[in-house]
This record gives sequence, structure tokens and C-alpha cells, in this order.
Amino acid sequence: MKLAVVGGGSTYTPELIDGFARLRETLPIEELVLVDPAEDRLRLVGGLARRIFARQGHPGTVTTTSDLDAGVAGADAVLLQLRVGGQAARAQDEAWPLECGCVGQETTGAGGLAKALRTVPVVLDIAERVRRAAPDAWIIDFTNPVGIVTRALLQAGHRAVGLCNVAIGFQRRFAGLLGVTPEQVHLDHVGLNHLTWERGVRIGGPEGEDVLPKLLAEHADGIAGDLHLPRAVLDRLGVVPSYYLRYYYAHDEVVREMRTKPSRAAEVAAIEAELLEMYGDETLDEKPELLSRRGGAYYSEAAVALASSLLRDTGDVQVVNTLNNGTLPFLPDDAVIEVPATVDANGTHPLPVPPLDPLFGGLVANVTAYEDLALTAAVHGGRDRVFKALLSHPLVGQYEYAEALTDRLIAHNREHLAWA
Amino acid sequence: MKLAVVGGGSTYTPELIDGFARLRETLPIEELVLVDPAEDRLRLVGGLARRIFARQGHPGTVTTTSDLDAGVAGADAVLLQLRVGGQAARAQDEAWPLECGCVGQETTGAGGLAKALRTVPVVLDIAERVRRAAPDAWIIDFTNPVGIVTRALLQAGHRAVGLCNVAIGFQRRFAGLLGVTPEQVHLDHVGLNHLTWERGVRIGGPEGEDVLPKLLAEHADGIAGDLHLPRAVLDRLGVVPSYYLRYYYAHDEVVREMRTKPSRAAEVAAIEAELLEMYGDETLDEKPELLSRRGGAYYSEAAVALASSLLRDTGDVQVVNTLNNGTLPFLPDDAVIEVPATVDANGTHPLPVPPLDPLFGGLVANVTAYEDLALTAAVHGGRDRVFKALLSHPLVGQYEYAEALTDRLIAHNREHLAWA
Amino acid sequence: MKLAVVGGGSTYTPELIDGFARLRETLPIEELVLVDPAEDRLRLVGGLARRIFARQGHPGTVTTTSDLDAGVAGADAVLLQLRVGGQAARAQDEAWPLECGCVGQETTGAGGLAKALRTVPVVLDIAERVRRAAPDAWIIDFTNPVGIVTRALLQAGHRAVGLCNVAIGFQRRFAGLLGVTPEQVHLDHVGLNHLTWERGVRIGGPEGEDVLPKLLAEHADGIAGDLHLPRAVLDRLGVVPSYYLRYYYAHDEVVREMRTKPSRAAEVAAIEAELLEMYGDETLDEKPELLSRRGGAYYSEAAVALASSLLRDTGDVQVVNTLNNGTLPFLPDDAVIEVPATVDANGTHPLPVPPLDPLFGGLVANVTAYEDLALTAAVHGGRDRVFKALLSHPLVGQYEYAEALTDRLIAHNREHLAWA
Amino acid sequence: MKLAVVGGGSTYTPELIDGFARLRETLPIEELVLVDPAEDRLRLVGGLARRIFARQGHPGTVTTTSDLDAGVAGADAVLLQLRVGGQAARAQDEAWPLECGCVGQETTGAGGLAKALRTVPVVLDIAERVRRAAPDAWIIDFTNPVGIVTRALLQAGHRAVGLCNVAIGFQRRFAGLLGVTPEQVHLDHVGLNHLTWERGVRIGGPEGEDVLPKLLAEHADGIAGDLHLPRAVLDRLGVVPSYYLRYYYAHDEVVREMRTKPSRAAEVAAIEAELLEMYGDETLDEKPELLSRRGGAYYSEAAVALASSLLRDTGDVQVVNTLNNGTLPFLPDDAVIEVPATVDANGTHPLPVPPLDPLFGGLVANVTAYEDLALTAAVHGGRDRVFKALLSHPLVGQYEYAEALTDRLIAHNREHLAWA
Repeated sequence: MKLAVVGGGSTYTPELIDGFARLRETLPIEELVLVDPAEDRLRLVGGLARRIFARQGHPGTVTTTSDLDAGVAGADAVLLQLRVGGQAARAQDEAWPLECGCVGQETTGAGGLAKALRTVPVVLDIAERVRRAAPDAWIIDFTNPVGIVTRALLQAGHRAVGLCNVAIGFQRRFAGLLGVTPEQVHLDHVGLNHLTWERGVRIGGPEGEDVLPKLLAEHADGIAGDLHLPRAVLDRLGVVPSYYLRYYYAHDEVVREMRTKPSRAAEVAAIEAELLEMYGDETLDEKPELLSRRGGAYYSEAAVALASSLLRDTGDVQVVNTLNNGTLPFLPDDAVIEVPATVDANGTHPLPVPPLDPLFGGLVANVTAYEDLALTAAVHGGRDRVFKALLSHPLVGQYEYAEALTDRLIAHNREHLAWA
Repeated sequence: MKLAVVGGGSTYTPELIDGFARLRETLPIEELVLVDPAEDRLRLVGGLARRIFARQGHPGTVTTTSDLDAGVAGADAVLLQLRVGGQAARAQDEAWPLECGCVGQETTGAGGLAKALRTVPVVLDIAERVRRAAPDAWIIDFTNPVGIVTRALLQAGHRAVGLCNVAIGFQRRFAGLLGVTPEQVHLDHVGLNHLTWERGVRIGGPEGEDVLPKLLAEHADGIAGDLHLPRAVLDRLGVVPSYYLRYYYAHDEVVREMRTKPSRAAEVAAIEAELLEMYGDETLDEKPELLSRRGGAYYSEAAVALASSLLRDTGDVQVVNTLNNGTLPFLPDDAVIEVPATVDANGTHPLPVPPLDPLFGGLVANVTAYEDLALTAAVHGGRDRVFKALLSHPLVGQYEYAEALTDRLIAHNREHLAWA
Repeated sequence: MKLAVVGGGSTYTPELIDGFARLRETLPIEELVLVDPAEDRLRLVGGLARRIFARQGHPGTVTTTSDLDAGVAGADAVLLQLRVGGQAARAQDEAWPLECGCVGQETTGAGGLAKALRTVPVVLDIAERVRRAAPDAWIIDFTNPVGIVTRALLQAGHRAVGLCNVAIGFQRRFAGLLGVTPEQVHLDHVGLNHLTWERGVRIGGPEGEDVLPKLLAEHADGIAGDLHLPRAVLDRLGVVPSYYLRYYYAHDEVVREMRTKPSRAAEVAAIEAELLEMYGDETLDEKPELLSRRGGAYYSEAAVALASSLLRDTGDVQVVNTLNNGTLPFLPDDAVIEVPATVDANGTHPLPVPPLDPLFGGLVANVTAYEDLALTAAVHGGRDRVFKALLSHPLVGQYEYAEALTDRLIAHNREHLAWA
Repeated sequence: MKLAVVGGGSTYTPELIDGFARLRETLPIEELVLVDPAEDRLRLVGGLARRIFARQGHPGTVTTTSDLDAGVAGADAVLLQLRVGGQAARAQDEAWPLECGCVGQETTGAGGLAKALRTVPVVLDIAERVRRAAPDAWIIDFTNPVGIVTRALLQAGHRAVGLCNVAIGFQRRFAGLLGVTPEQVHLDHVGLNHLTWERGVRIGGPEGEDVLPKLLAEHADGIAGDLHLPRAVLDRLGVVPSYYLRYYYAHDEVVREMRTKPSRAAEVAAIEAELLEMYGDETLDEKPELLSRRGGAYYSEAAVALASSLLRDTGDVQVVNTLNNGTLPFLPDDAVIEVPATVDANGTHPLPVPPLDPLFGGLVANVTAYEDLALTAAVHGGRDRVFKALLSHPLVGQYEYAEALTDRLIAHNREHLAWA
């Protein structure tokens, strides 16, 4: 079994490696290839990866390459974890939308659109090269914005599944609160990537007892605290929103915080610099504690589980980003939704979803329309398409801001936009 | 043919009467009953109505009553034009949302919800009494918010059609610009009440040539000026939004204007006081010029046309508020949409609608979800339902504002809310 | 010794009575007259006042009257604690400025100006009647906005001193933290009413050791918490601002809170209703605990101390509102400032004040200019003068808001403004 | 007579040269030295300068140098027109304050402070070198923020006068409207640099008839249009504010415009690039029309007049930035104010100024306090001093924004701040 990780030079990779090592029974990787154009980082990260495998007795090989075609050739699965433009582009995504009074964030709002525009063409190019070099490989996309990127991949006919760590994070958190194992917790998770709600928490599987009311009765304060939302939001909604919903439910508060605090990008950049220095230490042979502060918790568990089910045809249920195909009847079939699905060698098959309260459905429909327009803008380019995507976004919605954000998005991303 | 106008004591009624008089060939009313609990106003308005009929040689009778059941008994059509709480409630709708930084307006946003909550129970009660006193009567609703009120009526099984003057206004305006008669202009009008776009302007009928591109090429500045939107919005959208879309596309600008200007309610109240004084003048036998500044242009033409088609089974096409029933496939069947429909003795039958651009569809879906929740709140009451409707509204959407607006909505409307 | 309390029917009065009873050695009142046009309230409050005096063995008499001239005749001191328009006007002051995005508060910003405009003419009329009925009486003004009201009284040549409980509140709080008696704590308190900073906290008197650095080192978190300001503000300023400075230093945060919370006026009104019910209980003979939640802590101590010093010629130092007369050299001599002053039978004599940091002085100068314009508007009336006062206020400062606030101020206070 | 222009490589210089050429009778320059470290620009600008002198028959020489000491040696006057950090720093000044919801502008608010912090140390260093190389030279400062820079120069004991083109612009504009020559128009101009009002417009001199009421009666619409302020502002104030007052009187409107428009810096940068290309054309021997769109109109006239009066001891009246010395009694003596002054070989001597309406005086006092703190921060550095200056600025004033702006100011200007 061969896996390739595109963007393998990321400081995040040791987290993934640690998961592969710990979970080698679930996913017996024989050959792991880290692919990245940034050779210096790749050398540091690759060295640590090999030391982690060695320490934990993982028998697989770890190689590194900046040659994408060679790296993915013959792979059974290709994991995408890119950041086009790096942390510098992220810092921009977080700053210029604020000039217009809008949230500056790299996966939602105007910043998220910028990231989509930078990323989709690059990912589609990579996927084409994967199709040629490894026609049977599954593409597992962590690259944000996962919903739009996955929709781009599926629309282009790739064997792709989108993956996010929000659901697995809730699963682990709720399991801890309930005193059960994570595997026992099934989430009635529904929505779009970064726009989801947990409508039920079932013990034992999709048909298990729903303990969400009990969970909220006992732990709503703690859960609300995790989400930086007032507890009353949970009480009123009766469900648990993903913390990305905070950008909607508490938009102005978030803008105010962003205006009065240093940016998250600067923080992550500082952590990354420190991590890279650590990785160069030849005696380090485990992921450093500091890595946990970088974000992305449980991604390796989720990736191992997903790859294993796809490659070993397990047919178990996991939360993935996949084609709607009527699951949410008010959305187009070709929309990508984030829901529990059975996963097997044929791909991902959403479980049926009970009707969605209009309180959630209205927003899902609106953001799906945005994602449609965002994808069109990312694939075909053009100022007008960018403008339309921004105007359609519920966090923008106004003519003047859409215009001003369009100008700034293009000005700050010109080098990444072929058409600009 | 007997028509009853509920809310007939409105200062607006002379506009309607004038239309009935002018268009008596189209709608040969024999008996017109103005129904209103406000007997003083009714006396003034009724007197003028009779003088207008007399002057124009209309043979029908005009009577007035504060007894709803008697007034509507045996009517062929009942027109609803209420304002529960009067201009005072409207003034409130326009003020308290501003305290929370939100648009204060009587048909959209939090103010529109307040109006829905006040109005729906009253309208449903009236409709029940109409059903008993005039089982075959058509109910034509002008009462705002027309979309929600019509949905309430249809959900309760009434023979109802919702009517708004936005489409007829565009029809007249475009006809003038194009140098054709209004009857020649067919609008590809689509959306929800007060959330519509003209996607095509066809000459001669639904299959006629679309002259919208030409119209915009020549008159975009003038049309944009009518809508108080920059011309560039029309250029970018390629369609003509209703001026209520300004509350969305230029939300912050509107809030800023509202903050820095006296309220529209005060203006209308002043006009109404002046009108009532005029109506008491026994020598006045036509609608005064001042009435044109009160709003509601062309309502009488639209009402006459609609009543005529329903009662005389004409089968022509008019823009109405009617059940979706799959017309817009991404909305529930029981949503009420505002589109061209053939109108005959069996009611209103929407013409097919080509697929809607996600730029418009996303917003329509979101506002439909709000209208669903608003109707539930109006029918069943309860603070939680009000909160949910507000949270779902694209112009609110945030937790803190939804809470604060809920409190203020209830505090300012307690006397009109049975459950509060 | 005869004291009259104008506005004696206030629910707050029992706090004052309790202080007079406890501190009867300091201020041996023989005759106390509560004056108020609201006879019902006066009866309830007067009854309780007599029972408190009786229970505590105070030998003075308590009488009540709605006849101002009779009530103040021959008084040695007249305390003013009015609220023109009552809690209803206050509720308005807190609401309509928010419509314009401005702080709604009854002593600062546009709401504070409204209160000044309502209050100054009433107070000046009362003072004239005091001058005739009790030419030697001292007028002690608690009525807000104390700075402007006191300036009005002094400008008209009255024997007046303005009093606020901010300084005594800090004195008591700091004494508690330092483990000393309040009398030992001398504050280097400087600024204008509701715009002050504690620049030093001295033990033993104006020349005592300044323990403010120590106090902040040990208790900055607690003090910042009292003020609802981040601790860092205290660290950066090195002084302790009055909590009214929060309207300046955290203006947008306060507006946001006001938008998302019920108003303080509603809360106080509810407390007042409950208090009045309690006061009617003939068995109640002490101030109820609930009164402490109404605001105004330590006012009675401050009033007793001030009246005692004025009437008994003590020459001690107290924080009062008094004529500047060069104390702050960058302000006009006839400005009213709030600083420590020696108080004797000749009135109040400010202690010298060391130069003020421009960080504080700039704001003090700006607000003094506002107070000058506000007083002119209050005395002479006229829309233009109101507009100028609002435009000059640092919390307004913008043309559009000044216009809109002027319109709303006049519309909501027309019955209290003779010229409107 | 020798003049040196520091920052002589500016694209603006040909405007100055054109003025020197036209007004050579007033200011008979024998030797003009353009000093600039940017040798490429200097070459282009110097060439054009020589061609302009030649074409107009000016007998003086024009030389260029990047050696400051040599360039200013023996000069009679040194003009300072620097832009530390160039247009790139300006672009930053205009962007990052917007992230915090504050005006982004290079002379006022947080952007203006950034410019002051970059500029003051450089100017003081230049002035020291001027003092050594040309001890008798007058330093004429156009470099913004002129008020703070001039105060820095005077505080350090330099022979300096600050000059702005706002007053001369009004003088020319009003002269045109009144049909008189500019020399006949005397302005009752008062305030601080970029914070001034024209309180009178006198014909013939400081004692001439005040025609401002007449001017406003006839031309208020046009003047208001120049200032982008509603005419009503002029009506209400009765005076003409400088257009920089718009940042105060229409702050939120300006922020909204800045959010929805491309930046002025980008526009100026584009004009500058085009100008430099033109300057390289050896056939060009006059200032190109495009230069008029760069800003800075009439600066050359003002500079010639000021230099002439200083060097030729004329004793005429001009509007300058000069020491207060009691002219505005509520400001410190060492504040720098912008008022009419007689100018002679001994420097600038302010004319007496009638008392200032508190509507203007309050703001002047507040901004003077800010300028004091800004200068301290510029000279001594340190995060705390920057924070205090920002907190004191009437356009900031709030704790959270002052903190966030301090962080951003330092982050974006680190290379120009020795202490950061």
C-alpha cells in the first residue's frame, strides 16, 4: 500500500506521521511519499517522519520528493494538504477583508473565497497528474475550503473525498464527556463543510439512542465555552453548531475581536518557525507538544480511518464531504455536503438525513449557492464572477462591500490568479 | 358582483375607488362595501368614495359598515388592506430595530416580522368569518407582509391570492420607457414578495422578445435612480431588482440613512392627517393629488385586473403571490412565491420558471426559510419561535441581535400578541 | 437647622434619611422637609422617613409638602434631587440615541444633553424661589448632569455646590482595600463631573503618601472589574478613571452592550415600583436592602459631610463641583470642575491641582466646551444651539448624527422644552 | 540668494520650480539646490527644473545633490518636503487603520501619527545638519504632519516656519468667487494645521470688511461641494471649515467611502509613475497638466511669499504655523497654531485672535493635546507613548482601538522606528 501526501513539507505532517505510526494496524502503509516543492522544509519534515516511524517500529518506508508525478505514481491514495501562497497569503486573507468591515478568515467569507480562487486551479492540476500517474488512487482532500475544493474535484470526475476534522473533534470531545469510546459515538452531523450542526449524538451507531439532550443538559456550558458562543445559543438551537458558525451567529463580535487583536496568521507563523527549528534536531523522534497548538487535531485519525475504509472496503460510517445526490432534497445533486456516509471501495454513500429545520436549511441553501458561484469563479476566473460570489455570500451580501472586496481580493492575490 | 374591502377606512381607499370607477368595464362592481372598525374614518372615506363614483358615473353602490360579517356576506371577492396597530405600530417597527443597528422597516427584517406577528392572527380570523359568510369569495390580500400573510391564508385552506404593486409598477415604468402600452409588457418576474428580480422584459407576452438588455443599455441610469441603487448594480446583475432588494444589497447604507433622517412613518402619518381633512370636504369628488405621495401606486389597477380574472375567468397572465408547487424546485411546495401566473376562475397557476441563478436562488431559499419560521411564530406564538425567525433572517442572522430584537419586538407589540 | 429636600418623594430618599439618622451628630437637623409635587409618592416616602427617624431616635421632625415656597422657607440648606420627566424620560434618553448608533445614557452623550435641557430651567426656577424664601440657604445639587446644573446655578449667582458620589465611592472602596478608614483616604481627584480620574490616593490628607502605585500593583484587577474596563487600561494610564470614562474609552463596546441588553431604565423602574410598595408597609422602619440596587451609594454620607461643613464652617477638604477660577489654567474661570476643595461657611475653595497630563486635559477641555454649549442651549433654547452642543460632544462629533440626534431629542422632549 | 529643497526629487518639485520661475521678481533666487537621496529621480526632476528655468528666462542656477550637508551649505532658506518611506508607507497609512474601523489617512488619525513617528526624527536630524551648514537659514516645512513637525523643530530651537496650502487655496477660491485679486483677500483663519476654520473673509486686510456672510449667502453650495460636506454644515457653523474637518464632522461617512473605494495612495502612485516618465522627456520644459492632479496646489506661491518675507523682511501678513505664545489663551504657549501672522526677518508674529467659539475651541484643545503626546512619542519612542497619543486622538479615543492600532502602527513601520 502506497500513500502520497501532497504538501508533505507542511509543519503539520509529523501529526499525520504519528497517526500513521500509531494506527499502522488499521492502515498498513508500505510506502509513504511526502511531496512538496519546498525542498528545505521537506528535508526537515522527512527526517523527523523517518525517525518517528523508526521509534514506533513502523515497517514502512518514508521518502520525499519535489517531483509530483514521481511521488504519486502508483499510489493507492493521495492526501492533499496544500496552502497555496503559504502563511503569507493567509495573513493577507485575514487582513484586507477587515478593511471593509468584514471577517478576515481563511476558510469563510471573502478570505475563504480568496483561498478557493488560489487553490482550486492548483488542486485540479495536481488531480489531473494523479489521474495519469495513479489512475486508481483515491484523492483525500484536507485542503481548505474543503467543500469547494471537493466539489471542484468531483465535478472534474476525480475519485475524491473531502475530509475535515470538525466532526471527529466533536466525536472525541463528546465521548470524553459521556465516558464512552469515540467509536461508540455516532453524530447526526449535517450541513456543508464548516457550516454544520450536530443534531444528535447516538451511542452505538446511526440507530442508537440520542443522548444529545442529556449531553446538553449536563455539559452545555463547557461545550458553549469551546465554541466561544453563549450557552444560550445551544439552549435556543437545541443542537451543537460547529465553531465556524460563530462567524455567522456572532459575526460582529468576531469582527470586533479581529480588529482589536493580533492576527491568527502571525501566531501560526511564529509556531511554525519554532517547529521547523525543532524538526531539525536529529534527536527528536516524536511529534513535539507544541504541534498541538497549531490546529488540525485528530486529522490523522480521520485520514487513517477514511483511507482504510476506501482501500480495505470496510463499509463503516464516517463523516465526509461527498456529493449530495438528493440527500438534502433542497440542494442540487452536484452540491457537496458534509454528512455521515458509509465508506467502501466504491467510495462514500451518504446515509439518509431527516428533514432539516428551516433555521439551518435556509443558511445551508444560501451558502451552497455561494459555493457554486465561488467554484465557477475559481475555475473560469474574471472579476464579475468574483463579485457575484461575494455578493451571494451571507457574510457579505452588500453591493459596496462586494465591489471593494473584489478589488482587494484581486490586488492581494494577483500572482496566484492566472486571469488577473 | 359584490366586493368588500376590509380596512376600507384606510386613507388609501380613494385610490382604489378611483380605479374601480375608471375600470368599471373590466370589473363591473354592483355593490362595494367598505368594512372598518374605525367608524369615523369610514364615514369620511365612504363619503368621498360615493362622490367619486357619482362624479364618474359609476352605477354601483358604496356602503360602509363596521360589522365584518355583514359587510362580507355574499361577497364575490374580499380585499384585505389592514394595518393592525395603525401608523403608530408602523412608527415603532421603524424605530426599535434601529436601536440594535438593524433596518427598521415594516415589511422586511425585524419590523416586518413584528408586522407579520400582529397581522396573521387577525387576517386568519377575518378569513374564517369570510369563509362562513361568503364561502365562494376570493380573498385578495394586499396586507403586508403579503408573502407570509398569503402563505398563512393558503395553509389554512382559504381561496386566497396575494397581490403587490411592485410588478405592475415596473410594467408601467418600462412601458413608458419603451413607448408601448403596459399591456404589451410581460415581465419575467421571479422571487418572493418584496424579494424579486425582473429577469426579462418581453413585448407581447411570455414568449415575446426580451428587450431587457436594450432597456438597460438605454435606461439603466434612470432605473437605478428609481431604486436608489448605483447603476453598476444593474450592470453587474444584468437584471432589475425590486427596490426592496436595496435593504439587502445596500443594508448598511440604508441603516445609515435611517439613522440620519426622520422616519417614513412620521411622514406618512402627516400625509394621512392632511388627507382625512380633505376627505371631509363635501365638495371633493376625486382623489386628491396628495394621495399619490402616500405610496401604493397602481394597486387599484392590479386589484381590478386580478379580481376580474378570478371572477370572470379570463385566463390571462398576471404577477401574483401563489403556491410554489414545484415552480421553483429548490423551495417547498407550500412556499408562496411571486411570479407570473395564469388567473382564471380556478385560481392562479404559475407559468414555468427557468432555472434561477444561484446569486438570486440562495437568497430566495434563505428568505423562504425565514418566512416559514415567521409564519410558525405568528400562528403559534412564543418567544423561542420569534427568536428563531429573527436568527434565520439574512438581515439579522446574529445571536445577540436576534435576542435583543426579540425582546424589543415583544415589548413594543405586547398588546397585539395574544401569547405575550 | 432646617433642611429641605426638593424631589423628596424620590424612592431614593430613605437612603438619605438613613444617612441623616446615622450621622445626626455631624449634621444635627432639627427640621427636615421633603418637597415634591408627586403627593402620593411623598406620602409613602415621608411615612417611612418618619419611621426611620423614630427607630433611630433622631429628634428632628420630618414634614412633607408639595408647596415649594413653603417647604424651603427659612431653610439653611436645600438639597436638589430632581428627575424632570421621571423614569419615563430616562427610558427615552437611553433609547433614541441608540437609534443613531450613539450611547443612550442619562448623564453623558445625547441623553445627558436631553436631561440637561429638561432640568436646567426647572432647577433655575427652583433656585430663584429658594433665593426669595431662604436667601442664605446653600443649594446642594445632586441633580444630574451635576456639572452643567451647577454651572447654571453659579452663573445665575446662586449659593450652590454640586455633589456626586463617584469620589466618595472610590474613597470607601480604596479604604477597604487598604485597610484604613475612609477619612484617612484623600483622593487626587480631578476633572469634570462624570469625567474624572484618581491620580493619587494619599493617606492622611492632601500631603500624605501616595499609595496609588501600591494599590494598583495589588488590586488593579479588582478595581478594573468594578469599572468594567480591562485591567490593561489602568496599567497604561497609571491612574483610575471614573466608570463614566468607560463611555469614552470603551464607547463601541458599550453601544454594543446596550443594543443587546434590556435598558437600565426598565430595571430601575421595576426596582422603584417594588420599593414604593414596600414603603407603604407601616411596619417598615429602615431602608430596605433592595434600595442598595437602585444606585446612589454613599450619597447621604457625602451630603451630610458637605452640608455640615458649609453650615458649621469646618474648613475640611471634600470633592465637590465648584468654579474653576484658574485651578485648571486651560479652562475658563467660570467652568465648573470636580476637585478636592476646602469647604467652609464661605463655600468651596479648590485646592491647587498639579498640571494635568494632556491625555486627560485634552478630553477635559473638549467636554468643558460641550458643557458651555449645552448650558447655553438649556438656558436659551433653540434647535441650532442643541445641534452645536451635540456636534461639540466628543461622543457625537459628526454632522449627520448631531442633526439626527437633535431631531430626536426635540421630538422626545417637546413637552419639557418651552421653546420647542 | 540660495535656496535648498530637501526632498527635491519629489515629482511635485516642478510645481515649485514653476512658481519660482513665475515669481522671480518676488524671490530672486540665484542658486537653487535640489537635495534628495534618490539620485535617479533627482536626475529626472533636476533636468526638467533646469529646462523650466531656461524656458522662462530665470537667471538662477539649478543644481542637484544627494549630499545633504553640501546641498544646504550657506543656504538662506531650506524647504523641507520629505516623505519618509515614500508612497509605499503612505499606502500602509491608508490601509491598516481601516482594519480597526478607523480613518486611514496620512496626516490625521492613526495614519497621521505613523507619519509623524517616521518623519520627526528624520527632520530633526536634517535640521541639525542645516544648523551646522547654514546657521542663519530659515527652515520652511511643508512636510506633513506640518503642525507636529513644526512644533518639533521649534522645540529643538530651529529657525522654522510651517507652511500649508489650505489657507492659500481658500484665498484663491474666495477671490475668484468675489471677483477680487487674491492679495485683497484676508482670511480670519484659525486653528491647528489641518484643523482650521475661516471665520471671516476680509477685503483689503485684517481690518477690512468681513464678506463671509455674503460669500456664504451666494456660494455656500459650491464651497460645500469643494469640501464634500453638506451645505447645511456651513449654514449651521456660519464659518468655512478646512476639508480636513470632514474627517471629524463626517468620520463614519469617510470610513465607509474608504472601505468601498480604492486608496488615494494607489492613485497618487500611478500619477507619479506617469509624471516621472514625462519628466524624462528632454523636450518637456514646463510642468505637465497632469501634475495638477497630484495635490499641493498653490504651494509654490505660498512658499515664495513666505521665503520672500523672511529673507526680504517685508512684514506682510501670511497664514503660517507658528508658536502660540498666548494667541489662543487656552493652549500652551509652546503649541503650534495656524493663523495669520506678520512675517519679517525676525520670523512670524501672530496677529491677535478674537475668542474662539467653544464649538471649535474644544476640538482644537483636544487635538493640541494629541499633538503634544504625538511629538513626545516621535522624539522618545516607546509603545506606551504611541498608545497614549492614539488614545488621546478624538478620532480614536477608545482603548481597544488604541491598542490594536498601536500594534499595527509598529508592525507596519518597524524599519522606520529606531526604538521598535
